[in-house]
Amino acid sequence: MDEWEEIEYKPIPVRTLLVEMKDLSELMIDLAYSSALFNNAELARDVLELERKVDNLALLLKMNVMIAARDAEDAKDLLGVSLVSSAADKISDAAADIAYLVLHGIGIHPAVREAFKRVEEQLGRFVVKRDSILSGKSLKELRLASRIGVDIIAIRRGNDWIIDPKGGDKILEGDILIARGAPSGIEELGRLAEGISRRLED
Amino acid sequence: MDEWEEIEYKPIPVRTLLVEMKDLSELMIDLAYSSALFNNAELARDVLELERKVDNLALLLKMNVMIAARDAEDAKDLLGVSLVSSAADKISDAAADIAYLVLHGIGIHPAVREAFKRVEEQLGRFVVKRDSILSGKSLKELRLASRIGVDIIAIRRGNDWIIDPKGGDKILEGDILIARGAPSGIEELGRLAEGISRRLED
Repeated sequence: MDEWEEIEYKPIPVRTLLVEMKDLSELMIDLAYSSALFNNAELARDVLELERKVDNLALLLKMNVMIAARDAEDAKDLLGVSLVSSAADKISDAAADIAYLVLHGIGIHPAVREAFKRVEEQLGRFVVKRDSILSGKSLKELRLASRIGVDIIAIRRGNDWIIDPKGGDKILEGDILIARGAPSGIEELGRLAEGISRRLED
Repeated sequence: MDEWEEIEYKPIPVRTLLVEMKDLSELMIDLAYSSALFNNAELARDVLELERKVDNLALLLKMNVMIAARDAEDAKDLLGVSLVSSAADKISDAAADIAYLVLHGIGIHPAVREAFKRVEEQLGRFVVKRDSILSGKSLKELRLASRIGVDIIAIRRGNDWIIDPKGGDKILEGDILIARGAPSGIEELGRLAEGISRRLED
């Protein structure tokens, strides 16, 4: 948290900014819960990085909203956008609170564990190794949902995040995959990303 | 929002309080999004009522945490509980912000609509009428998920809320059902709750 980007105004549709803020904030909550449940510092750091992204988006959105509003009617129209943006910001702060808990080495109290556990589904975070058969393939080709029952909810590529990637999105070597699914499927995805397993059966 | 309950200390396990706070705050986000999408003031008022519940639970939890902590070690253990409780509180505030948007008649900007829409699933809120075949039956008997593809995510009974009800929970006349599912299933549930449809096929 030592480097701060300077905020520079860019004309971006408020719709684009708002959708991204909302999607990121919800992803952050899922990541934060998992980071606490599995005491996973990497996930917790992802959450804090995403919080900076959400904060930046919130400032950009504020600027774009100001410039978009020319009269009282515009301002009233855009009030909703502004309120929803604050809401997404609060949700991302909440996720960050939980991430701090993990990074400060505060043990996970059984009550917290109880609150966060989701019996059916688990979250996994895997780096795609050079040998992985996932590398270079699109999600459409891989059909991970039908084959191993996991859903890729985000791909982190360097400093960029692809949230809720679509079928046409490709997985590249070095990508970090955030996936949700049944524990067995998540384990299998880990083996595929590592290159330990090279078979993806129908 | 004119009547305020006096907060009275009750010895309740922090685990129970925390799980309830977390479940309520997540339900509130879903309700808030739907209230905005469908401009539904009833859902928005539900959100504000639940916010009061979450606030009360947060205070009760604080008291129970104070009393539970006898030494520095306890206090460190309980720090996580306290942080997660604040996080749930922030999430519930965010949901309330969105509910205010609806209740203040601030129009839903297309950007907000875009951010909130979930293509696959819809939320419904229905009062169970006297003639409804749902009345007096348990969720296990009704098997709504397999029959019409909807999941009852909460039942409001007077001032009480049953969040994530289980198979043994019964639906009673006058209950308000909050359900999630495909639009066609939600419509069907509405007809069943109203008593317009009295057939539930396998």
